[in-house]
Amino acid sequence: MYRYKITFAYDGAGFSGFQIQPHKRTVEQTLKTAVNKIAKNPDPPLHVIGSGRTDAGVHALNQVAHFDMPYLIPDESMRKALNSILPLDILVKKAERVPNNFHARYDTHSKRYRYRVDQGEFVDPFKRLYTAHYKYPLDLAKMQRASQDLLGEHDFTSFVASGSQAQSNVRRIDDVLVRRDEINHEVIFEFEGNGFLYNQVRIMVALLLEIGNGQRPVDDIPRVLAAKDRQAARMTAPATGLYLVRVNYADSPAKNIDDC
Amino acid sequence: MYRYKITFAYDGAGFSGFQIQPHKRTVEQTLKTAVNKIAKNPDPPLHVIGSGRTDAGVHALNQVAHFDMPYLIPDESMRKALNSILPLDILVKKAERVPNNFHARYDTHSKRYRYRVDQGEFVDPFKRLYTAHYKYPLDLAKMQRASQDLLGEHDFTSFVASGSQAQSNVRRIDDVLVRRDEINHEVIFEFEGNGFLYNQVRIMVALLLEIGNGQRPVDDIPRVLAAKDRQAARMTAPATGLYLVRVNYADSPAKNIDDC
Repeated sequence: MYRYKITFAYDGAGFSGFQIQPHKRTVEQTLKTAVNKIAKNPDPPLHVIGSGRTDAGVHALNQVAHFDMPYLIPDESMRKALNSILPLDILVKKAERVPNNFHARYDTHSKRYRYRVDQGEFVDPFKRLYTAHYKYPLDLAKMQRASQDLLGEHDFTSFVASGSQAQSNVRRIDDVLVRRDEINHEVIFEFEGNGFLYNQVRIMVALLLEIGNGQRPVDDIPRVLAAKDRQAARMTAPATGLYLVRVNYADSPAKNIDDC
Repeated sequence: MYRYKITFAYDGAGFSGFQIQPHKRTVEQTLKTAVNKIAKNPDPPLHVIGSGRTDAGVHALNQVAHFDMPYLIPDESMRKALNSILPLDILVKKAERVPNNFHARYDTHSKRYRYRVDQGEFVDPFKRLYTAHYKYPLDLAKMQRASQDLLGEHDFTSFVASGSQAQSNVRRIDDVLVRRDEINHEVIFEFEGNGFLYNQVRIMVALLLEIGNGQRPVDDIPRVLAAKDRQAARMTAPATGLYLVRVNYADSPAKNIDDC
């Protein structure tokens, strides 16, 4: 068997999330069907292992997965074969042979997420599936200051949705960024870290929005972290604004893949 | 009865075009249902008259329609009432009382269309429903030169799709524009004129793309116009790239409505 790593984008609007579920259109199932078609539908079927799940409606610019193929196919041919089968809401940007011990989930070094908040007066029909809409004023400086309190290693119990199966809620955030996109009237959040709990990014964004709008004090994050209580953070920002920007592996520097 | 003019945007991806068709989700039907709900479902039902049709997949930034309401409702209340009922892929930007002799279709003075061509190497999953994809090189200067030959009054018989019910194929184009959007790697076409035949904009764009790619000479448009033969133009660009930007009426200068 030959192991391939693929890097791919998807528009999450048409999928019930990444993970296979019966009778639902999922990214994993769609990829699995394509990979098995290329492999001439072996029995038992081949599996596709993603770097991690994304929820229904969440997008990816550079998600990563691996699978094993019984035939040796040149990288570029593999990429083209997949794109010729996949629907247009998934695009394979890169396919590459990797050592058979590469694992898309276990070898993950860090991940980067982006969150887009549209500040238009109304919900823009063309952005409704690609941003969250928040029309109230936001103090960028406050959110930038507050976001620094998320950096480093913390117990993120206050930022995890019920339903998480994580054994530990300790994660490390290496980079946060809050900026305005003036052209598109958006506020953009980015987070990079060694892993994120279920709904963690969306809960962090919702809390930063409350700080930016003055509903919470700018120094509230240390208190919320210390509480280790989901009730301390309250809201979850909608799935539509969330993008998995990239997945970093020890041997694949981030610069390899275009983030946009 | 009180007549209202509404200006609205829609994401065409989820509609089988503007015009009502049985068992299809259309913009006209969706508006009609909302208007009748506000009017407490009179019998016979109220009609909604659009400025003109758009095809399945075609978008609108500022489409216009009118309807008559048995109750007098303040403009801003009407706009909010419609948006509270309408799905998020239609947004009413403005509602205004107009004289009872205003007619959204017959009083149209001119219309402006935009066409977005994505020049990325691959079909971007996030643009597949909002642009046409054309990865081959395009000579902007050639397309700009050629597009000038469309200006003025012409018989556009070579640029009309079969199925048109127009009695005359003579139309006037007042403005054409071809530019690059460097940020988004797109080429943008815009056309403003006193009316457009069925598929005319998409056929003009396809022909300009052939000129930009060197498949046709830069001075081919006068020949195609003179031929008065649909076979002379050949291709039709996809619906996904087309936007109705605005509809101008004699008494409503274009500046009233934001084009974006």
